[in-house]
Amino acid sequence: MNIHDKRMPASVTTGPIGKSRKVYSSPKGRDDIRVPCREIPLDPSSGEPPLPVYDPSGPYTCASFTPDLSAGLPSARPWLATRTGLETYQGRGVKPEDNGFAEGERLVPPCPAERRLHRAAGASSVTQFEFARAGIVTEEMIYVAHRENLCRERALDVAKERIADGESFGAAIPEFITPEFVREEVARGRAIIPANVNHPELEPVIIGRNFLVKVNANIGNSAVTSSVADEVEKMVWAIRWGADTVMDLSTGRNIHNIRDWIIRNASVPIGTVPIYQALEKVGGDALKLDWEVFKDTLIEQAEQGVDYFTIHAGVRLAYVPLTANRVTGIVSRGGSIMARWCLSKHKESFLYERFDEICDIMRKYDVSFSLGDGLRPGCNADANDAAQFAELETLGELTKIAWDKGCQVMIEGPGHVPMHKIKANMDKQLKVCGEAPFYTLGPLVTDIAPGYDHITSGIGAAMIGWFGTSMLCYVTPKEHLGLPDRDDVKTGVITYRIAAHAADLAKGHPAARERDDAMSRARFDFRWEDQFEIGLDPDTAREFHDATLPKEAHKVAHFCSMCGPKFCSMQITRDLREEAKEIERQKGMAEKSAEFLEKGASIYVEAK
Amino acid sequence: MNIHDKRMPASVTTGPIGKSRKVYSSPKGRDDIRVPCREIPLDPSSGEPPLPVYDPSGPYTCASFTPDLSAGLPSARPWLATRTGLETYQGRGVKPEDNGFAEGERLVPPCPAERRLHRAAGASSVTQFEFARAGIVTEEMIYVAHRENLCRERALDVAKERIADGESFGAAIPEFITPEFVREEVARGRAIIPANVNHPELEPVIIGRNFLVKVNANIGNSAVTSSVADEVEKMVWAIRWGADTVMDLSTGRNIHNIRDWIIRNASVPIGTVPIYQALEKVGGDALKLDWEVFKDTLIEQAEQGVDYFTIHAGVRLAYVPLTANRVTGIVSRGGSIMARWCLSKHKESFLYERFDEICDIMRKYDVSFSLGDGLRPGCNADANDAAQFAELETLGELTKIAWDKGCQVMIEGPGHVPMHKIKANMDKQLKVCGEAPFYTLGPLVTDIAPGYDHITSGIGAAMIGWFGTSMLCYVTPKEHLGLPDRDDVKTGVITYRIAAHAADLAKGHPAARERDDAMSRARFDFRWEDQFEIGLDPDTAREFHDATLPKEAHKVAHFCSMCGPKFCSMQITRDLREEAKEIERQKGMAEKSAEFLEKGASIYVEAK
Repeated sequence: MNIHDKRMPASVTTGPIGKSRKVYSSPKGRDDIRVPCREIPLDPSSGEPPLPVYDPSGPYTCASFTPDLSAGLPSARPWLATRTGLETYQGRGVKPEDNGFAEGERLVPPCPAERRLHRAAGASSVTQFEFARAGIVTEEMIYVAHRENLCRERALDVAKERIADGESFGAAIPEFITPEFVREEVARGRAIIPANVNHPELEPVIIGRNFLVKVNANIGNSAVTSSVADEVEKMVWAIRWGADTVMDLSTGRNIHNIRDWIIRNASVPIGTVPIYQALEKVGGDALKLDWEVFKDTLIEQAEQGVDYFTIHAGVRLAYVPLTANRVTGIVSRGGSIMARWCLSKHKESFLYERFDEICDIMRKYDVSFSLGDGLRPGCNADANDAAQFAELETLGELTKIAWDKGCQVMIEGPGHVPMHKIKANMDKQLKVCGEAPFYTLGPLVTDIAPGYDHITSGIGAAMIGWFGTSMLCYVTPKEHLGLPDRDDVKTGVITYRIAAHAADLAKGHPAARERDDAMSRARFDFRWEDQFEIGLDPDTAREFHDATLPKEAHKVAHFCSMCGPKFCSMQITRDLREEAKEIERQKGMAEKSAEFLEKGASIYVEAK
Repeated sequence: MNIHDKRMPASVTTGPIGKSRKVYSSPKGRDDIRVPCREIPLDPSSGEPPLPVYDPSGPYTCASFTPDLSAGLPSARPWLATRTGLETYQGRGVKPEDNGFAEGERLVPPCPAERRLHRAAGASSVTQFEFARAGIVTEEMIYVAHRENLCRERALDVAKERIADGESFGAAIPEFITPEFVREEVARGRAIIPANVNHPELEPVIIGRNFLVKVNANIGNSAVTSSVADEVEKMVWAIRWGADTVMDLSTGRNIHNIRDWIIRNASVPIGTVPIYQALEKVGGDALKLDWEVFKDTLIEQAEQGVDYFTIHAGVRLAYVPLTANRVTGIVSRGGSIMARWCLSKHKESFLYERFDEICDIMRKYDVSFSLGDGLRPGCNADANDAAQFAELETLGELTKIAWDKGCQVMIEGPGHVPMHKIKANMDKQLKVCGEAPFYTLGPLVTDIAPGYDHITSGIGAAMIGWFGTSMLCYVTPKEHLGLPDRDDVKTGVITYRIAAHAADLAKGHPAARERDDAMSRARFDFRWEDQFEIGLDPDTAREFHDATLPKEAHKVAHFCSMCGPKFCSMQITRDLREEAKEIERQKGMAEKSAEFLEKGASIYVEAK
């Protein structure tokens, strides 16, 4: 194996985001738990401390970090090595069919990084859910509590007021997150910490309605286009801009080895749809799928360290006819594969029938369920129909089975839904799935804008995030048209960070507004560099500003190109505020204003 | 005056949008009223007639039209020449200060197109509002009724059901629009048809809660950057992509002549903020503003044909102190100008005190009011505060005065508002402004994404459009950073067309879903060309598709680059549907499915 092998990925994007600085901190007395945060330094004139922001970008944005993709990331979960209940063992190894029988030049070399394999020893409890139910607070729980609090510390004095000011539709957002609160939420099934015991590189993240809304980015090659280097870069690029988890939806050859490279270098949870690979293994013929090939694929991927599996076990034989009169039928790949299998064989889905066995496998590695919505609507016309809701009820039934088996569960949601039908999805999901986290794709609120579906779906995502969805699966501008490239990934992630943050704000997350307010103060003070840096995308903001006002002097100018120097409303307001201060000194302005309002009379002295 | 003068705009973008065809039709017996529509031809394999879509793009997208910018557009309102109540007269002419005393090479030449000046003769009624109140159905009312119905004709049989399926929050959307319905809505003040008697080039458009949601695009030069050719092109470009009205927010020199070029070539209503030009006339010093210069500016612009004026008459002296503790103070240019004037002079706003005189002028030309929200919040922290809502109540008071004076009125709204505070804006506006149309900027649902504020605001725009806003003022990616260029204008307009359409869908507009459904059928049938053409932006959709699947053959392929040929869920569903048909033939599938669901038993025969 040669590190210069051209088929192997050699580099990814690294370095700090703008002028920000990665800092790690530990909960008191737990130096083994190192939680990342990104600090945005502000201009000294602001008199403000650096602004902390939640940071899923991994070590790649640390100024001092140089990645070695062949070695993979260092462990972020050192405690796994000694965790009770885990055993090390010899895995199943890689089989030729795992890579679609690719050979020679066509084979993507495996990632040389080797890890000791773990799984639950016998019936030992190893999932976060089992620990939580047993009253045990894990390192992952302490980690995510600390992580969610990082930006919350400075807002503690206004937390109660901010929560009261929001509308959370029944969520229970705390002022401050304790590890015990995390444990309770995980034990109730209201939150999950997707964290395969074979993914030590992972920086744990929590997904649940009472935490910050998370964003997933999909990557993956297809039979038509593919490169392992591109996919690893897309993963690193996606987390750089704010993806909290990444799904590898690769199809085609080399699927195993590409995933290996991704997981060994991923600091975020990685999700997959195992049925895609199972289908590859049977030559793309859905009718050849069976439990054995699927089971083997689950074990293969669990051993690699995949953190959550999309399992389309809710596509039952009886629901398939319910899609017959739809405008766009079944649009989920997994859903259509299973529908075909069920209908052609005239059998109940083996995913449904073998669900308890699937649970047994996933429990051993703590792979979380992402119960797939194989019958999600593919257009507004099909939204909230009988097929979709029948499947959702089955997902609720399966949630309870998975919980009984000790597994963590989240539920996937639509899709294409007009605005007025979004809330019904959230309400029904909460009800029938026992408040298990909802993980939605969009939804797209109209079908008429190919090329702009990050926007059509970002609208729906912000709304459903507000209503209670825990994680939003991004949609890129290429949706419905092609595979996203690096630029599309960035646009998709940033659009969804907007949606997630807008949801946090509306829910009354106690610290969400800190960043907005810091931006607003920077705007009012004409601190242009601070405005760029506080934003989600400093590079683009700076570039747009410089397109009309390129000179360095303009970055400290007290105006912008919209109004020019003479008309700037912010500057007028600043002047006005100075004048008002003068008046206030003389008269006690606020008091007089109230008086004025009541009497309609003229009571001010004139400003100089 | 030389047509080849380089300071004069010579060309704009013309030609059909994609493969669509501009068609004009007339209401029965009214050949003088020619209403445009855009028809998108679909592939013969679809068996579907061309899809009609609402078309604000003017003659520029007609294949046979060649513009002569110096001559201006031909009249679209021939009836104006003989309208009762109008008189022709000698206007005030152009004064040097109208163009900021620009001379020689620095002077943008006036547009050579000359029009006869009209105004109300004495006390004659000439506004759409006055006609409506008098029970008179104008040509403009017939025009907009026909226009709004164009896409509705094919949905008549499902109209009732679609309306019932929507959630309109109390709007009264009819199945079909009669001229009499338009008259009633205008008479009630619930809708306006901005249509200056001096803007014959205008294709009338209606703005109101019970009609399609409209989109406004802002253009305009500034003191920093400017070119008349750029601005005329931006206007034509904005309407090409779907802007229903355009506001010219120019500042700096040449403001009069630039506006002349824009209006003479504008088929959509043009709005302005007269205080900007008034301020230019007094050298940029707000304290030098007075009623005389403002009044003269109103007449100057009304004679040019501006269709609506933003008037910040709600910024009262007493409200200014209410902004003292805001994070971003006053962010409206007009608002800050008036606030400064009021506070520094310690006087009530002359716009407020002279409001009835303003009405008298605007009535004579039927310039509609767009009552400006000079105290709108400039950040989420300031949303829905005392200053904002105090001004809104004053706007309600002024609405009633304007109605009494015979004027058409709409109300401007915020701004920056988190999602959970949006609906309160709509509800309060409806209540205090007597259901006058609401015209909102965004709102932006978070402040942290400079470079992406078309998206932060598109989310809020879709929501407030759904709740009842009649027209959405676009925001471009350059917002807060610089002046939009042509690309930004397109991105902003398309983002807002998405928001407006999503709102129409959610409100239950009877025909809105026709376009979505046509797109969905094209998707299901793999009619790629139809997908591109039905979309809001055929060029971008085609380009994105071709980025991964460039060959012509791929445009008829029954798969896309997302899944590749083997995994396509749509194709699987099609196959599956064929199989299902076979089963149905044998057994009566739908019936049996219900039976199956009840009994949980196996009742199908196996498909071959």
